Amino acid sequence: MPVDKTRAFELHKKAKGKIKIYPTININSPEELRLAYIPGSVPAAMAIKEEPELSYEYTGRGNRIAVITDGSAVLGLGDVGPDAALPVIEGKCLIFKIFGDVNALPICLDTRDPEDIVHFATSMAPSLGGINIEDIDSPRTFMIVRELQSRVDIPVLCDDQHGTAVVTLAGLWNALEVTGKKMDELKIVINGAGPAGISVAELLLYAGAKNVTVLNRSGILCESNPHMNQFQQELASKTNPENKKGELSEAIEAADVFIGLSKGNLLTKKHVKLMAKDPII
Amino acid sequence: MPVDKTRAFELHKKAKGKIKIYPTININSPEELRLAYIPGSVPAAMAIKEEPELSYEYTGRGNRIAVITDGSAVLGLGDVGPDAALPVIEGKCLIFKIFGDVNALPICLDTRDPEDIVHFATSMAPSLGGINIEDIDSPRTFMIVRELQSRVDIPVLCDDQHGTAVVTLAGLWNALEVTGKKMDELKIVINGAGPAGISVAELLLYAGAKNVTVLNRSGILCESNPHMNQFQQELASKTNPENKKGELSEAIEAADVFIGLSKGNLLTKKHVKLMAKDPII
Repeated sequence: MPVDKTRAFELHKKAKGKIKIYPTININSPEELRLAYIPGSVPAAMAIKEEPELSYEYTGRGNRIAVITDGSAVLGLGDVGPDAALPVIEGKCLIFKIFGDVNALPICLDTRDPEDIVHFATSMAPSLGGINIEDIDSPRTFMIVRELQSRVDIPVLCDDQHGTAVVTLAGLWNALEVTGKKMDELKIVINGAGPAGISVAELLLYAGAKNVTVLNRSGILCESNPHMNQFQQELASKTNPENKKGELSEAIEAADVFIGLSKGNLLTKKHVKLMAKDPII
Repeated sequence: MPVDKTRAFELHKKAKGKIKIYPTININSPEELRLAYIPGSVPAAMAIKEEPELSYEYTGRGNRIAVITDGSAVLGLGDVGPDAALPVIEGKCLIFKIFGDVNALPICLDTRDPEDIVHFATSMAPSLGGINIEDIDSPRTFMIVRELQSRVDIPVLCDDQHGTAVVTLAGLWNALEVTGKKMDELKIVINGAGPAGISVAELLLYAGAKNVTVLNRSGILCESNPHMNQFQQELASKTNPENKKGELSEAIEAADVFIGLSKGNLLTKKHVKLMAKDPII
C-alpha cells in the first residue's frame, strides 16, 4: 500500500530530522557547567583511562549505537547513495528510539569500499555500545559484518540479515506448535540466497534444523550451481542434505516449510501440492 | 578551582551519557510508522537523490554536527585516548545543545593517522551540516582541519583554534574601545604558538592587525628560530614585522597587547613595565 506522498513530504519537512539530541542534565550555573564539562569530566575520564569498561558507567556508550549505511541497497529504493539514504536511516534511528529506547546515530557514508566501511566502524567503536549495519548490498554486507565482528568487542548487527532471521525463527516456532511438527525433522526450503536468505538458513541450522535447502536465481545451492558467491558456497556445504539439484519444484517436494525471501509470486499452487502434510509457508 | 570529585562522579553516573537521542515525531499507529520509515521516507529520499541540497530540508542534517577527537590532547588531561575522551566530548555535545541548540554527535576515534581521521570525517559528511574537530594535538589538528576544509563542502570548525580566536578578538575589540587604541596601530605579542596561538594570530591579522609577534618555546617565530613546525614557519613569514629575535623580553618592548596562550606565570611585572601605555593583557 503506497503512502500519501504529500503527507510524507509534510512530515519530513516538519520534523526536519526525525531524531534530535537531547540533554540528560541541565546547566543553570557556571558551577554546573564546570561539573558537566571541564573539570567535572576529568575524574570520569581518568577512571575510564584506568579501566575502559567504566565507559559503560560514566558515559552513554552502553545505550548508543550507530546505524551505518553506504546507501547501496536501501529498502524499497536500491542504490541511491548516502545523501538519499539519510531520511531512511533517520527513520530507523527513530524506530530504535521509540520501540527500543536505544540512542542510534544516523551515519551515511560516502564510500563503497568494504574495508573502508569496516575501518570506519572499527575506529568509531570507542563511542558506541553496538553497531547496526544497514541497507548495504550483498555480498559486501556479509564481508563487512563478519570482518567487523572479528575486529570490535561490541555487538554488530545487520538488520537485513539478523532482523529477518530472528522474526522468521519466531514465526516458525509458532507454526511448529500449531502443526505439532519438530524442528529437527523438518524439511525446510528457503527461496532466496541474499542477506536475508543466508542468515535465516544459518539461524535455523543453529536452532536445530537438519534439513534446509536454499535456492538462488540459478536454483538449489549445490556443487553444480553455476552462480554462487562465497557466502552461498559456504552455505551449500551445510545445507541440502539430500543433494538435490535444479529448480524450486525439485526442492519443494515433500517439504514441510517454505520461506520466501526473493521476489514474490514464485510459489504456485502446483508447488504447494508437492509439499508434505500441513505445510508451513 | 577544582570540582568536588564525588559530585562529578555522581553526576556522570546518574546521567549515563550527558546527551541522548530524542524523537521529533511519535509513532502511534502502523500508518504513522509507514509514514516515518518505509515507504514514507521514499519521496524524501528520491527528492534528495535528484537534488542533494534538499537533505537540509527533509532531514536533520542542517542542524547536526559531529564532534570528532582521537583523544590525543584532551583539555586538562592531555593524551588519554578515545575511551577516556568520551565524557569530555559528551560534555562538549551537551554544551552545543544547551547553549546553541545544535545536535552534536560525540565521536571518539581509535586511530592517530591524520589522513585516516580526515577520511573518516569526509566519509561521514553526507549525514552532517558541519564538523567540529576537538582536542587533537598539534600540528596534526592543523593538518586535519585544513585538509578537511579542502575536501568537504560543509563548515569545519576546530574549537581549540577557532573558538579561542573568536573569543580573543571579541575581548580585544572591547579593550580597544576602553583604551581608544586602533587595531592597525597595535603592537601585539602572542606567547604560545600551538593551535590557539596560531589561530589567534591569523584571525587578528585578518581583523586588521599589522604588527603581531608570536613566540613558541624557542622564542620569537622568525627565520633564526631553530624549532618551528610547518604552521609556525608559515606564520613567521606573516608576523614579526620588526624582525625581532630572542625571548619574550625582546618581543614585549613597547607592545600594546599581550596574549598568553602557553602555560601560565610567564609574564612578569618587569615585562609589563616594558610595554606601551595602557597595555592590554
